Amino acid sequence: MKLEPIGIIHTPFASQEGMPRSTSQAIGVRGIVEVFEPYRAGLRDLEGFSHIILLWHLDRIDGFHLEAVPPKQSETRGLFATRSPHRPNPIGLSVVELHGIEEGTLHVERVDMLDGSPLLDIKPYIPASDSIPNARPGWLRPDVREPDRNAAT
Amino acid sequence: MKLEPIGIIHTPFASQEGMPRSTSQAIGVRGIVEVFEPYRAGLRDLEGFSHIILLWHLDRIDGFHLEAVPPKQSETRGLFATRSPHRPNPIGLSVVELHGIEEGTLHVERVDMLDGSPLLDIKPYIPASDSIPNARPGWLRPDVREPDRNAAT
Repeated sequence: MKLEPIGIIHTPFASQEGMPRSTSQAIGVRGIVEVFEPYRAGLRDLEGFSHIILLWHLDRIDGFHLEAVPPKQSETRGLFATRSPHRPNPIGLSVVELHGIEEGTLHVERVDMLDGSPLLDIKPYIPASDSIPNARPGWLRPDVREPDRNAAT
Repeated sequence: MKLEPIGIIHTPFASQEGMPRSTSQAIGVRGIVEVFEPYRAGLRDLEGFSHIILLWHLDRIDGFHLEAVPPKQSETRGLFATRSPHRPNPIGLSVVELHGIEEGTLHVERVDMLDGSPLLDIKPYIPASDSIPNARPGWLRPDVREPDRNAAT
């Protein structure tokens, strides 16, 4: 199976340094999705959606590891129980907020990918199918937080 | 960019006839995700998640159309405002419920893909990033609006 980019995602992040490691950590972080001309007609009717799903190519990742240490964690986890970018098929998935569309340019918020990431697909976010508010997030319990260096132990 | 299947998804649907057109229409519909041996070690720690995201290859789709008439609708919409399978990069995305894992076999519910669909990726569903219960679903429910956070007080 071969994929071709349909656009490019512009974000403030030239390197992984300082880049949000998930969309939930990217509230307020804006980016621009540029859709290539041949695909722009497909954007019609998208503006009514407040959120969209971006699939993109993790293009600066080489190879994969079946284990990963998630950000701010110390324990190793199985790859598929993490959102590590080092995956057999390096496809990134981000639910972003859609602020507006001008021709082939989408203004979005909650971007958590490197600048220049190749866009593979845009899907409308449909809460009836895509939103599971009470999903149990496995080892990522909501109470797990980065240890506070200043906290008394 | 080239992708390789990491497994195969078994569902009750040999053809699109009678197949749910979205996961929200597939409550109670069970399937099995078979992960190929070389990737099974990556499944560790996944069982604690109640839901997972499957990315899969829409392998029986030829070509794409920039317009689509969604199921049970009469009006044509821009492709990227729909979940039509006829996409430039034919990647399916389904949030399914995880019932259990035995070695490389995942028992899941809410399957909305054809039997034998090649599996590309499994990601843990993380509500903090992936669940937007109040997302405005565009043309799907034009009357539904997100509460206006900027409303004058």
